[in-house]
Amino acid sequence: MLPAYTKYICGTAATRQGKAALRELIAGLQAMGASPEVCGSQTPGLPAVRLKEVPGSEEKAVLRRCGESMEIAGTGRGLIYGVFHLLRHLALGEEFPEWDSSPAYPIRMLDHWDNADGSIERGYAGSSFFFRNGKPICTERTRDYARLLASCGLNGCCINNVNVHGSALKLLTGSFKRELRRIALCLAEYGISLWLSVSFSSPMELGGLDTADPLDEGVKQWWGETCLRLFSSIPNLAGFLVKADSEGRPGPHSYGRSQAEGANMLADAVRPFGGKILWRCFVYNCTQDWRDAKTDRARAQCDHFAPLDGEFRENVFLQLKNGPVDFQIREPVSPLLGHLEKTASMMEFQIAQEYTGQQRDVCYLIPMFRDILDFRFRARRENDRTAERISAVCAVSNTGDDYNWTGHDLAAANLFGFGLLSWNPCADPAEIAEEWSVLTFGDDPEVTKTVTDILMRSRDVYEKYTAPLGIGWMCVPGTHYGPSPEGYEFDRWGTYLRANHLEIGVERGPEGTGFTEQYSAELAALYRNVKSCPEELLLFFHRLPYNYRMKDGRTLLQRIYDDHFEGYEEAAAMSEAWDKLADKLEPEVFRRVQERFREQLRCAAEWRDVVNTWLYRLTMIPDEKGRRIYP
Amino acid sequence: MLPAYTKYICGTAATRQGKAALRELIAGLQAMGASPEVCGSQTPGLPAVRLKEVPGSEEKAVLRRCGESMEIAGTGRGLIYGVFHLLRHLALGEEFPEWDSSPAYPIRMLDHWDNADGSIERGYAGSSFFFRNGKPICTERTRDYARLLASCGLNGCCINNVNVHGSALKLLTGSFKRELRRIALCLAEYGISLWLSVSFSSPMELGGLDTADPLDEGVKQWWGETCLRLFSSIPNLAGFLVKADSEGRPGPHSYGRSQAEGANMLADAVRPFGGKILWRCFVYNCTQDWRDAKTDRARAQCDHFAPLDGEFRENVFLQLKNGPVDFQIREPVSPLLGHLEKTASMMEFQIAQEYTGQQRDVCYLIPMFRDILDFRFRARRENDRTAERISAVCAVSNTGDDYNWTGHDLAAANLFGFGLLSWNPCADPAEIAEEWSVLTFGDDPEVTKTVTDILMRSRDVYEKYTAPLGIGWMCVPGTHYGPSPEGYEFDRWGTYLRANHLEIGVERGPEGTGFTEQYSAELAALYRNVKSCPEELLLFFHRLPYNYRMKDGRTLLQRIYDDHFEGYEEAAAMSEAWDKLADKLEPEVFRRVQERFREQLRCAAEWRDVVNTWLYRLTMIPDEKGRRIYP
Repeated sequence: MLPAYTKYICGTAATRQGKAALRELIAGLQAMGASPEVCGSQTPGLPAVRLKEVPGSEEKAVLRRCGESMEIAGTGRGLIYGVFHLLRHLALGEEFPEWDSSPAYPIRMLDHWDNADGSIERGYAGSSFFFRNGKPICTERTRDYARLLASCGLNGCCINNVNVHGSALKLLTGSFKRELRRIALCLAEYGISLWLSVSFSSPMELGGLDTADPLDEGVKQWWGETCLRLFSSIPNLAGFLVKADSEGRPGPHSYGRSQAEGANMLADAVRPFGGKILWRCFVYNCTQDWRDAKTDRARAQCDHFAPLDGEFRENVFLQLKNGPVDFQIREPVSPLLGHLEKTASMMEFQIAQEYTGQQRDVCYLIPMFRDILDFRFRARRENDRTAERISAVCAVSNTGDDYNWTGHDLAAANLFGFGLLSWNPCADPAEIAEEWSVLTFGDDPEVTKTVTDILMRSRDVYEKYTAPLGIGWMCVPGTHYGPSPEGYEFDRWGTYLRANHLEIGVERGPEGTGFTEQYSAELAALYRNVKSCPEELLLFFHRLPYNYRMKDGRTLLQRIYDDHFEGYEEAAAMSEAWDKLADKLEPEVFRRVQERFREQLRCAAEWRDVVNTWLYRLTMIPDEKGRRIYP
Repeated sequence: MLPAYTKYICGTAATRQGKAALRELIAGLQAMGASPEVCGSQTPGLPAVRLKEVPGSEEKAVLRRCGESMEIAGTGRGLIYGVFHLLRHLALGEEFPEWDSSPAYPIRMLDHWDNADGSIERGYAGSSFFFRNGKPICTERTRDYARLLASCGLNGCCINNVNVHGSALKLLTGSFKRELRRIALCLAEYGISLWLSVSFSSPMELGGLDTADPLDEGVKQWWGETCLRLFSSIPNLAGFLVKADSEGRPGPHSYGRSQAEGANMLADAVRPFGGKILWRCFVYNCTQDWRDAKTDRARAQCDHFAPLDGEFRENVFLQLKNGPVDFQIREPVSPLLGHLEKTASMMEFQIAQEYTGQQRDVCYLIPMFRDILDFRFRARRENDRTAERISAVCAVSNTGDDYNWTGHDLAAANLFGFGLLSWNPCADPAEIAEEWSVLTFGDDPEVTKTVTDILMRSRDVYEKYTAPLGIGWMCVPGTHYGPSPEGYEFDRWGTYLRANHLEIGVERGPEGTGFTEQYSAELAALYRNVKSCPEELLLFFHRLPYNYRMKDGRTLLQRIYDDHFEGYEEAAAMSEAWDKLADKLEPEVFRRVQERFREQLRCAAEWRDVVNTWLYRLTMIPDEKGRRIYP
């Protein structure tokens, strides 16, 4: 039963965003079965949804009951969030409280790794809907995408891959001015800002200069002119995302300049237009010799960026991945954040499930993101948590042109959840899961319970059957899907297990690579000591013998065997739970997810058997419970 | 000093091939500094090269001294080989003996794995010169290629990849009739036949049929009509090469038909035009579960084809790889050949150095090919050697559009040597190497000695630093270059090491997979017994503990360590030997090969360290000589 106020909508919208809010309100109520009558501002007596648009560009809206009516007051942008908030709660059938909420961060965005040719790097839901055949495109889906983002509380997107190549380079020139402008206008209607990934050596690749040295006057001038042209022609352009000196991308190091000098030069170029620079911290030696046991990739972020704290312009945001290495299923929080006291930073999550099941295995990441946001660096008295230290958030997007947006239907919970967390980092992951389930599959209590249970268990399950205890990197090189325990062992990526007959892991305490010492004294002490180190991170921080005793008395090896057998069983249980929903869901959706579960089980069995066999062959120690390990 | 008879050339050529022979003779003598006068048949008194063309299509020519003159008599095709023989010996400065030689095999060809898009599968010398942008092309290089083949004694080539995809499928239709005809005519002038790889399911892919069942009348009719059209428009088309039921390619098994039924249907279709079918025996389960220790890929050839002996048409040649698995640096000879008593067979070598250094590492394969040709199956009294059992030979080509044809200059010795062996399987690999060196780099004795030494040692050196004792498959999956000992271990390709802390290898004796029993009783007894098994094949045939004692008293593990240290040292010695030739070679050639040696040393060090480290971590047994193994 919808409240009485859904029968009428009062108020007029002045701006394009206000009008979009009104349109969404009408469409949303209609989709829920109402037939709202829109009656301008002339019906003071009736119960109605009353939209009050005020001037400005704030994202805030205030919702409150006024008698029988519901008032939504805010700027055009604010009204959009307010309307979606109202619609969400109506759909949930929840008693509606007052809402007076501002987002926690001014920048809450998705990073798309879409290539100009239409492919998506680490994309698991079809092809790009931003690019086709070397060109940007604006379609019906662009608008739906803007609606999708706004409905989750997001307000920005970077549409092209941080690895800028091919015709994506030309996004900076006038070549695609018209297409970019169309996309930007389409996004702007929903308050979504457009960002572009740029190549640091664009002045050479596009401008014909013989250098991209950030201190070179010609280079500065080129960027200045390019920005003038670009920002004048594209409304709503917010700035650039830059992957520099990282995995072969060009950057200031080539010219003996610091990361700060590189970022600041670009920051100066975009500043006249209110632009910002998102500067990635993913700088590490990606041509490491595996024989070199001194170099530790985990140290790289801090080693490169901590000394530069305070040297960046105000409109530079350091974008750092949540862990020190690369989006593994379990990593400690990047210590770099503990060192940035005078620098704006942006947390980069990844909802594209590159290392977490590639949207074939279900893996609800929101509990992990929440843990990371709650993480205390123990370095200052106040505002010490991740959520308080960062100034912005983004996630590598899990979308594509698949009809359901994310390939795996359940993967959409990660997009929704990331949006809600980015508005309010204290949101509860279980509540988000439940809410998402009701909004997606309806309010049948069994469905809600099953879906919420599956989502909430999924990360632990995935962790159990894949790489154990934070060690990471047992995946197939290149594809990053499926097990290959030694796949990266003799390669150049700095991700080594160094397992032998007796021991496994890299020692990162002070006797090892010293990575633990990048944390505050209190945390360093915690991680450094194998007894106090959280067990789920044991193999991230320490090299240990297989017979090391865990807190519960099991050996390290037995714990790994157990986890792998249990992980598979638990995945099977999730799959069976899903099967019981056959009669309660749209057949097409039910079947699609069921197929993904089949693949997940195949994958889980493969992980279980490969990891167990590999360790058994190394150690020749059998499973204590006599379960099957292939010799 | 050239002989006096090089001043005059007497004789006229009637056919296009005879004219090509005359042209080559003139050009060849001119290149050696002579200025031969061509004087028809009117100069009986002068010392001259006297070409006598006789009718027919035999490949034979007879060379003999008549007083001061040199007579070359033969068919047009024969004259080509006769002229190249003469030129080669003049260039070598050798006292010229009479020559009255026929080739050992009527089909001596190269298989190109060139794709229609211009790429080459397993190509290491640039792009295709047969295809560009989806189409066949005929250029200056096509003619030079025909000359190259004829000068080495070869007489055929299959120009497109056995994995037929993309527009290569359309080679069977009229689409590329003109281009194919041009190529065929260009090759025909030098006696080179054209072959095409075809897809077994062409009737579906091209003809719109709903089956490719070889017993279906519509399918037979489609192939018959296709062959009529194709053979009428392309002169010199010799037949088809077919990869069926192999690594995902379609084949008769899909219709419950045997390999013989599939091959025979095609044989019937090409027979009216004198065509032949080269039917590959590379049929095995390429989706094996690594947990399945019963299935042995090495057995597959015999299991599939031995029972079919005698069931193939006369114009079918079974094309089998030299070993039972896939072109590794060391394999036993395929046992299948010992079972084919009533079936024509064709030995497939690979001069494309897929697993043997990819034309970055030098690896002269001719001694290995000679060993294989000399191999006795011990199954019958006479004609029991490989060379006597086979009816034809081919090699996967190592050419591309690199200026020097083969990328690594020294890799050209493999093409030359394969040609000479295919004419005369008793040719001596060392003599071939020496001859090639003189023809390529001139007759400086130091150069000849150094180059010959490098070539003759190169295979042993490569074998030492890569996968040991016939076990194979320690290469990086996909690229097949560089070490990755467990790269294939949990994959679907049937190539497992199954190494654990105590043992390594797959047992292929009767207690194991029984592969040894596919050989004759005498050979089976030899291989079955670990004591009599040739040591270089020990890990191909047997699973052994690391402390197994080799004949010289070393442990198996120590032997592997030693080989890897020595292999690197010997590669370094080859490289140093090359460096000493700096002043004796064209600078460009010297530098090019020097760079390849640098890469070979890098690669050899990588192989040495990765294989040794991997085994050390597994076994924890140190090198007895205390050399450096990274822990």
